[in-house]
Amino acid sequence: MQLHNFSAGPSILPKEVMYQAGEAVKELNNSKLSLIEISHRSKAFIEIMDEACELALRLTGLENQGYKALFVQGGASLQFLMIAYNLLQNKAGYLNTGTWSDKAIKEAKLFGDVVEVSSSKDKNYNYIPKDYSIPSGLDYLHITTNNTIFGTQYKSIPKTTSPLVADMSSDIFSRDFDYSKFDLFYAGAQKNMGPAGTTLVIIKESILGKVSRAIPSMLNYQIQSSKDSMFNTPPVFAVYTSMLNMRWIEAQGGVKVLGEKNASKAKLIYEEIDRNNRFEGFANQEDRSNMNATFNLKDPSLAEAFDGFCEAAGISGLKGHRSVGGYRASMYNAMSIESVEILVDCMQALEKKY
Amino acid sequence: MQLHNFSAGPSILPKEVMYQAGEAVKELNNSKLSLIEISHRSKAFIEIMDEACELALRLTGLENQGYKALFVQGGASLQFLMIAYNLLQNKAGYLNTGTWSDKAIKEAKLFGDVVEVSSSKDKNYNYIPKDYSIPSGLDYLHITTNNTIFGTQYKSIPKTTSPLVADMSSDIFSRDFDYSKFDLFYAGAQKNMGPAGTTLVIIKESILGKVSRAIPSMLNYQIQSSKDSMFNTPPVFAVYTSMLNMRWIEAQGGVKVLGEKNASKAKLIYEEIDRNNRFEGFANQEDRSNMNATFNLKDPSLAEAFDGFCEAAGISGLKGHRSVGGYRASMYNAMSIESVEILVDCMQALEKKY
Repeated sequence: MQLHNFSAGPSILPKEVMYQAGEAVKELNNSKLSLIEISHRSKAFIEIMDEACELALRLTGLENQGYKALFVQGGASLQFLMIAYNLLQNKAGYLNTGTWSDKAIKEAKLFGDVVEVSSSKDKNYNYIPKDYSIPSGLDYLHITTNNTIFGTQYKSIPKTTSPLVADMSSDIFSRDFDYSKFDLFYAGAQKNMGPAGTTLVIIKESILGKVSRAIPSMLNYQIQSSKDSMFNTPPVFAVYTSMLNMRWIEAQGGVKVLGEKNASKAKLIYEEIDRNNRFEGFANQEDRSNMNATFNLKDPSLAEAFDGFCEAAGISGLKGHRSVGGYRASMYNAMSIESVEILVDCMQALEKKY
Repeated sequence: MQLHNFSAGPSILPKEVMYQAGEAVKELNNSKLSLIEISHRSKAFIEIMDEACELALRLTGLENQGYKALFVQGGASLQFLMIAYNLLQNKAGYLNTGTWSDKAIKEAKLFGDVVEVSSSKDKNYNYIPKDYSIPSGLDYLHITTNNTIFGTQYKSIPKTTSPLVADMSSDIFSRDFDYSKFDLFYAGAQKNMGPAGTTLVIIKESILGKVSRAIPSMLNYQIQSSKDSMFNTPPVFAVYTSMLNMRWIEAQGGVKVLGEKNASKAKLIYEEIDRNNRFEGFANQEDRSNMNATFNLKDPSLAEAFDGFCEAAGISGLKGHRSVGGYRASMYNAMSIESVEILVDCMQALEKKY
């Protein structure tokens, strides 16, 4: 039986990507050497890194526009402090839409003034704030485009005259977006781009070099950029596998085609959540994420029965985050609509029996 | 034809480790899921992380002695600044034995006073300094136990009353050592422990919490330790593969047995370097590394001929670092003595023909 992996991250990748990555760990392209035993200064790996960076810019439509793509380590959590280290001289604004925004704010406060422009914490982050005014003269405004834990997602990009910075860890490459509205965006690979262990950072280079503090080399975007992500040994396997996955995204037709497929998958599950009287959605309807659908049983005593249906159908990784409870169906690019249909079948089976 | 991979890092790992890691990327232990698509909070991965940490302490003989093993990201280069961030309140001492020591010093200077206790830079780092006095009252003394680029290695541990910190990136798990002499040691995985993408840090926990500055969460050893290396998503593949490799080290008999094998391999190559009139060693004899043997052709015009012999024999990754030139034979744990014998054969073939 095939499993349907709804895990929030690390999460599903295309079968062919995982297969090819596994083969490369045994032997890279008939080289008689494993991907993981070759020098990162070898021609073979430099080509991999270059292709990964090119693909990232091409998929976001940012080639030849003054942007640079970097692959670094440390996850989004290291970006929380790198952003402040490199960009926060006086005052930055943050929109607080969940646990990860909140953590980003906490780290930034070590480096300068932080204004929480708006927050949805009052309702356990079940919505994206809309009515707020953004102070002028910010070093940058930071948003989290998709909130994995709570299942909310920005449907439009806030308008600001300050540089716009975004954590896109859980929806990078998942929709057609005007990426040029952003001055810096980043994504821990392990949700929609690749395996855990690398982080994509795309930066408009003109925003760098404006703070007066000394920045340690590893945390300095200008140094990482001048060394083309090779200031030190990069996480070879994670970059290679992300590159394979970006090739796959491009072969599918790019973010526009995948964005439409992701919208169809989301429509399917949300329509069932709204129709089926056993369930209720967590997130505010207009802010619902196309990546992570959060929902609960109206009657928690049915959990055992529903879990049984899901297990029998081969569904895994559906448990909700402890901050929300209930269920969370993460439906990243690699998830087929057929897997979502099977989840919907389970929801209908529960309705029919109870 | 089998290749003999003398690459300095990323570098050779045991064939069976690379094979098993490749299989796990396709499917982990008949779970129907890939290693890289499961949650890092799953029972399967928590067991992997726990086993990796236990193995690291067991192989270094540091179980139940107040030490904690962590797997973090960012390589040794991130440790250069994390060490200073967490431990440097007033003044730290550094022994400068190569490019990597030098980089560690540069990053530490951003956080406090740094005393360069001694340096071998005067002779392009071809030796380990011996006659120097260590100031008292240092927050810590930092050494680099093995210098990958220059092929030198500490044969004894400096005596100091200050906490001792060591970069062991290129000789971790390679010899029988009194690891309890160190208060903190670390190793980028990609030389002797695993694939690029994770860094082992072993810390005596009692040395933490003594600096007054605020430390960003991701760079804070106390936070990383309290979260058992799971403050954020760990680099799953690199930790898993390092765990497999540490299992292999233990199955071989541990660091004592491997240390003896490594000494035999080193003896073989250095005896040939000294005997064979076509070659000369780079490093000071008594400081020669058992991991990385650096040597040059006395007559550089023979390079093409020697490279030809090596290529025909399936030797790869032998080119010296640009700081030294010539050749560098890296002979980490996974390298067999047979591969070193083949290199010696090539050296003898050159001697015979020219």
